[in-house]
Amino acid sequence: MTLTGERLVENMTDAERERAKRVESVLPNLREAAAHADTTAEFPIEHVALLREAGLLGLVVPTEHGGLGGGLRDLAAATYAMGTACPSTALSFFFHNTSASRGLLPLEAIEAGLFTGDEVGPVRAFAEKVLRRMAGGTWMANFASEEVKSSGANIAIATTAAPAEGGWLLNGVKSFGCATGVADTYLVTARVEGTEGADGLALFLVPRDAEGVVSRDPWNGFGMRASNNHGVTLTDVFIPADEALTVPGSFVRMLKMSRGSFVGNQLAISATYLGAAQNVYDFALTRLTRKTFADSGRPIASSPMHQVIIGDMTERLETAYLWIRRQLELETSEPPLLPKAEVYRQWRIAKGDITEACFQVALGAFKACGTSAATMDGVIGRALRDLAMGLVMTFPAERGRLEAAQIITQDRENELFASVPR
Amino acid sequence: MTLTGERLVENMTDAERERAKRVESVLPNLREAAAHADTTAEFPIEHVALLREAGLLGLVVPTEHGGLGGGLRDLAAATYAMGTACPSTALSFFFHNTSASRGLLPLEAIEAGLFTGDEVGPVRAFAEKVLRRMAGGTWMANFASEEVKSSGANIAIATTAAPAEGGWLLNGVKSFGCATGVADTYLVTARVEGTEGADGLALFLVPRDAEGVVSRDPWNGFGMRASNNHGVTLTDVFIPADEALTVPGSFVRMLKMSRGSFVGNQLAISATYLGAAQNVYDFALTRLTRKTFADSGRPIASSPMHQVIIGDMTERLETAYLWIRRQLELETSEPPLLPKAEVYRQWRIAKGDITEACFQVALGAFKACGTSAATMDGVIGRALRDLAMGLVMTFPAERGRLEAAQIITQDRENELFASVPR
Amino acid sequence: MTLTGERLVENMTDAERERAKRVESVLPNLREAAAHADTTAEFPIEHVALLREAGLLGLVVPTEHGGLGGGLRDLAAATYAMGTACPSTALSFFFHNTSASRGLLPLEAIEAGLFTGDEVGPVRAFAEKVLRRMAGGTWMANFASEEVKSSGANIAIATTAAPAEGGWLLNGVKSFGCATGVADTYLVTARVEGTEGADGLALFLVPRDAEGVVSRDPWNGFGMRASNNHGVTLTDVFIPADEALTVPGSFVRMLKMSRGSFVGNQLAISATYLGAAQNVYDFALTRLTRKTFADSGRPIASSPMHQVIIGDMTERLETAYLWIRRQLELETSEPPLLPKAEVYRQWRIAKGDITEACFQVALGAFKACGTSAATMDGVIGRALRDLAMGLVMTFPAERGRLEAAQIITQDRENELFASVPR
Amino acid sequence: MTLTGERLVENMTDAERERAKRVESVLPNLREAAAHADTTAEFPIEHVALLREAGLLGLVVPTEHGGLGGGLRDLAAATYAMGTACPSTALSFFFHNTSASRGLLPLEAIEAGLFTGDEVGPVRAFAEKVLRRMAGGTWMANFASEEVKSSGANIAIATTAAPAEGGWLLNGVKSFGCATGVADTYLVTARVEGTEGADGLALFLVPRDAEGVVSRDPWNGFGMRASNNHGVTLTDVFIPADEALTVPGSFVRMLKMSRGSFVGNQLAISATYLGAAQNVYDFALTRLTRKTFADSGRPIASSPMHQVIIGDMTERLETAYLWIRRQLELETSEPPLLPKAEVYRQWRIAKGDITEACFQVALGAFKACGTSAATMDGVIGRALRDLAMGLVMTFPAERGRLEAAQIITQDRENELFASVPR
Repeated sequence: MTLTGERLVENMTDAERERAKRVESVLPNLREAAAHADTTAEFPIEHVALLREAGLLGLVVPTEHGGLGGGLRDLAAATYAMGTACPSTALSFFFHNTSASRGLLPLEAIEAGLFTGDEVGPVRAFAEKVLRRMAGGTWMANFASEEVKSSGANIAIATTAAPAEGGWLLNGVKSFGCATGVADTYLVTARVEGTEGADGLALFLVPRDAEGVVSRDPWNGFGMRASNNHGVTLTDVFIPADEALTVPGSFVRMLKMSRGSFVGNQLAISATYLGAAQNVYDFALTRLTRKTFADSGRPIASSPMHQVIIGDMTERLETAYLWIRRQLELETSEPPLLPKAEVYRQWRIAKGDITEACFQVALGAFKACGTSAATMDGVIGRALRDLAMGLVMTFPAERGRLEAAQIITQDRENELFASVPR
Repeated sequence: MTLTGERLVENMTDAERERAKRVESVLPNLREAAAHADTTAEFPIEHVALLREAGLLGLVVPTEHGGLGGGLRDLAAATYAMGTACPSTALSFFFHNTSASRGLLPLEAIEAGLFTGDEVGPVRAFAEKVLRRMAGGTWMANFASEEVKSSGANIAIATTAAPAEGGWLLNGVKSFGCATGVADTYLVTARVEGTEGADGLALFLVPRDAEGVVSRDPWNGFGMRASNNHGVTLTDVFIPADEALTVPGSFVRMLKMSRGSFVGNQLAISATYLGAAQNVYDFALTRLTRKTFADSGRPIASSPMHQVIIGDMTERLETAYLWIRRQLELETSEPPLLPKAEVYRQWRIAKGDITEACFQVALGAFKACGTSAATMDGVIGRALRDLAMGLVMTFPAERGRLEAAQIITQDRENELFASVPR
Repeated sequence: MTLTGERLVENMTDAERERAKRVESVLPNLREAAAHADTTAEFPIEHVALLREAGLLGLVVPTEHGGLGGGLRDLAAATYAMGTACPSTALSFFFHNTSASRGLLPLEAIEAGLFTGDEVGPVRAFAEKVLRRMAGGTWMANFASEEVKSSGANIAIATTAAPAEGGWLLNGVKSFGCATGVADTYLVTARVEGTEGADGLALFLVPRDAEGVVSRDPWNGFGMRASNNHGVTLTDVFIPADEALTVPGSFVRMLKMSRGSFVGNQLAISATYLGAAQNVYDFALTRLTRKTFADSGRPIASSPMHQVIIGDMTERLETAYLWIRRQLELETSEPPLLPKAEVYRQWRIAKGDITEACFQVALGAFKACGTSAATMDGVIGRALRDLAMGLVMTFPAERGRLEAAQIITQDRENELFASVPR
Repeated sequence: MTLTGERLVENMTDAERERAKRVESVLPNLREAAAHADTTAEFPIEHVALLREAGLLGLVVPTEHGGLGGGLRDLAAATYAMGTACPSTALSFFFHNTSASRGLLPLEAIEAGLFTGDEVGPVRAFAEKVLRRMAGGTWMANFASEEVKSSGANIAIATTAAPAEGGWLLNGVKSFGCATGVADTYLVTARVEGTEGADGLALFLVPRDAEGVVSRDPWNGFGMRASNNHGVTLTDVFIPADEALTVPGSFVRMLKMSRGSFVGNQLAISATYLGAAQNVYDFALTRLTRKTFADSGRPIASSPMHQVIIGDMTERLETAYLWIRRQLELETSEPPLLPKAEVYRQWRIAKGDITEACFQVALGAFKACGTSAATMDGVIGRALRDLAMGLVMTFPAERGRLEAAQIITQDRENELFASVPR
């Protein structure tokens, strides 16, 4: 039997297939809950237990820390498969898993000698704690983003951590964190008071119900409505010292270990959108081939306009697969196919193109299926809204291409300085 | 002062401006009610009285029949202006006005000698009745469309009218009619039992509360949610003979008088979408120029990505204006600039391109304004949904281009037969 | 009979039609010479006499200066019509006519009081000389462009004029001037030595055979190959004082009188491309409807792929017409429909979109007509090359949209400063 | 050192690298001859010896038949690398190599038991002869295409083979065959007189100088001008029986062995275009980063318009790599990743998308580099023309998508018949 995730991730190992079967087992529940979750705009709380019991909260945690030992391929297969069923749950699950990078990358950085002397102890302790808890069934939401926008950086952090007896006091507002009010623990990125720049960024494990943590008002999102991404305000929230990673520069050093952009595994968020796009594509094709014209008896799909739209949808869908499979290859191949800088540059374009292509698939389905399918709560309406969110949650394709152009232009300029004889 | 409608319809006459001022006067109420109407998916019933009292139900009825004497330019200016405020109301108002063509075109056909002898009396009586009622404050919803799809025709009619003593019995299902449950009268197109083809089509004035008329369940539309387009089922609905136009072939003959495609004035539905597109464009531009980057203090709009998107949105918006202004010119100029066949062909492309361009404006606004504006009930979310409906309610641009191609190819083939020496 | 130019410029006056008939009379010669001119990459010298004898060198010169009294509508109709026959000649003719603006705008500026006292005399004398000569049969090539690129300005002038006894000495290189070696007189823009900025720009009437004027090597252009746009080098070329307009600031002041962008009438260059696009469109349609499939006997045009491409070509072609007709309306309507700033902004987008659309028409023809029509010297190959030049000779659509975005963003920012209460 | 072909074909084996080095060694000569070959529109005859001496005529012939033992990966790497230097030579070399499939596929078909009894002998003899000759240094042009177009098939064959004593007499016209007048042998596909359908197709080895073989007039191609694709007329050309493969149905049976579409390895023609696209991309980027604005000193590449175009070019180029690498993977992976039908469907879209993307890269380079680079014989002008040919020599993307849509729709319809319970 072909598992859903195998449509994206080919040639799975036996171990990967075993893990993918766990994912497969939860899909029926996800699928069934999706429409209601979208209507109520609430993360289906029962999915926490469902995924926990399937062992999936530790999907990408190494076995030595109690997890299932999956990697990026597993994660992409999982978010893709869940994306075909309930994109909001897939998205939330993705963000839970990004927390693992805060355990894995520091350990790799220690291995690589980026931490020395006294630093090693607390870094390792924190990293292992994150991983062990995830493997143990803790849903760990990753609260990085904030609302403020910077022209020079992708993410700007205004939340602060001030030293307090035995720990730290956090203050700030975290927006866009998935699983607000649902996750057991919020992994919060904050800036240590008195520091500037990325070296001052620190990580804190904030219990959902800690004093001073208040969920912000739910917002009436356009799509991905059941991902509970309204975020929290933190007011003098006390976090004990051993629930934090405050070694200066640890954030920057861990990023160095990532194979892709930022903390890596971002392609798994794109896999979520791709799963949703595949689902709406299948739905539309089935509908268009089953419904027939009253006069000719031929399927709706056979009209010239429908043929054009189906051809375009197919091309867009396949293009999304191409970008994501390539990125997966670039970020997992041993030895690396390309230097990290090129993997990063490729990702800037890929990220935007994938979400754009996925959205176009939904838009094609919308156009092709006509007024009678243009409902708020049907498969097509939900997909169009969920996939529209991809355009803003990652970023528009226009931005990825401009970023790539800038990198390329500067690289070439630098090359010139290096190579032109004076 | 520039009236809203003048952004689309230039060089208004004084009389046109007077009528446009009536439209302008209702816009604040429409704008205020729009968000709530979208949420509840119900046509704001108070808008019926609002428009009636402003005299707008007779906007395109000639003064000799008691109306305001407006023409296609007035109607386009009105639906455009209303589209900037509440697209659902604008759409419903558009469909009310299309009913007027069932009065105006028959009268023109009589004038042109297309009806003769005994036919003239009943045709004129029906036509004048439609116009007089509209001018008198009757909201007359136009119920033509049905759910069945035909590969050979744009509209397929399955509703039947069977002769009964003193009148007719109607049976069938009308979907997609705006103002269901709100309009005073439904103008229903049906096929006289025992006939085939367009010659058997007849028109009936069905009171909203007539026995046998049942509103279908409201559907949870993706956009244009407050236009009440769920339609009705008609079960043995009795309509007196003088409330019907059943002269064989009258439908076909009245279509001959239309200057555009079908019954004409379809460009006013596109004007609705254009109004909505202009509104979301203005909203996005204001937002993007007022919000600034935290570090540089420069407006968000100034980033390279935003410049690209704003340039694209502007080009798309202006393109929509070009198509619609041109069509308006083609359908109102005296003497005609082009033969009817070319005006028709132009409209096939225009119709699809305008809605596509308008949707792209909303999509650009969505992308440019980011996650925080990506809500269900905000201006951008509503515009994206309302304008998505344009893609299916008229038809996708893909179809318009294919139809034009087919017409052109056949014209050229025919020319060849005529001109190639044998 | 419909004249070719009437496909673009509708509702011609009788006088316009009379002038358009002169244009029509030269088209057969132009069409016949086009392929050979493209192959040899030489402007057909006999076209100078042809156009002179038809009186067309004075097309846009007012009758009081001996010309035909045409305006922008005439010019657009002429370059469009010539563009259907020989785009290189049309382009060269366009540039000849742009010289007239250096006569017309100064006279308007005098009228508007922008020149005063002693300035009036020499400005008027120069302006009238330019116009009288053009009307008298002088082909006056307009040499403005140079090769150097500036990030801040569209055109950068490095050619200098130094004072000399009784006149001026010119030095510099003019690239891209059409009709090099063919025109009787080159109208050269140069910077008066010792000045900076636009106030120092001056105009000089340089006889083709003046000492120190050397044609640059012909270049092997991709398209528009017979427009002789290789330009000249000027080495100590002496020009008498009364063959120059050197009143400081006269260039800037004349620009103020233009209704469109720069010196106006740029839309007539776009009309050249549109004529070429219409021609290749007609050619392709005829070919595709005459050639048939061997098995079915149906025209090639009827295949699904061809229908898609024909639909797209038609839409692109019509879009180009829409932009150019609108711009023509904006630049000729009395009273003006829009303020000059908006006319200018509209033109930035229009310029790029028109050439892009025209190129897409040729590309569609190329794709649709297949390998056997993909020759260098056939109608399709020439059109594809000529229209590709439009993308770089005016500028790519990408640039026009970005310029419009920048203008819009700044306007909105300025509005904010004006309107936001402090 | 990275070989040129490795930019496309990653993780080469040592043997593949050895073969790729042979390709690398001929690139300087190819690159040097390219511009002149384009101007004169003649295949550089010296390239025959060049490639022969490098052993490359047997590149894809198995070692047991005297060849280098390369496969599809080698061929793609070779045509890609040659495409960066001289696309016409690359294209001609591609078609030489397609001849090998007429040796390889029959041998595989024998292996698979598709030929039985008496058939095996002559099939094997012919197949081995083709391969042995190619390995021995015979340039074997593949002449399949003809000018006639069929609505139902991609290729229609009108050339006939009539039985004659000791052999066959060929009559017909072959258009579009590369290396006309250059190749040693033309591999001609013809229909055995008296048969219909694909079962009657037979293959003939026609010596270039055989009696009755006349090269058609060279045509003035738009691009790929040095590929000598003008074809031949065959008039009563006698071919001995043992220089032909006339076993009925052999053509059809050999096609069954292909892993991709048709006779396979078509992706190597796309690799030619991709090589040309990479070359023009590199050229443009270098030019745009070296040339600077006169005022700011910043590279031209840094302007907003150039950043947009460079971003788009990069995305298009990378997209072409994605499609071709994926297809290469699909056609070479063991065990197969997908069933043949899906590999075929994927290729329909890939083929059109790759050439479209490559053309867009050249078009972007053309736009970005401006008028001064818009020459006929420069790198950009040649690339634009060569890559335009890709749009018609393979087919436009519009067709690939429509074909895929048709396949998908029919598959789904068939599934319905199979799966819907009655």
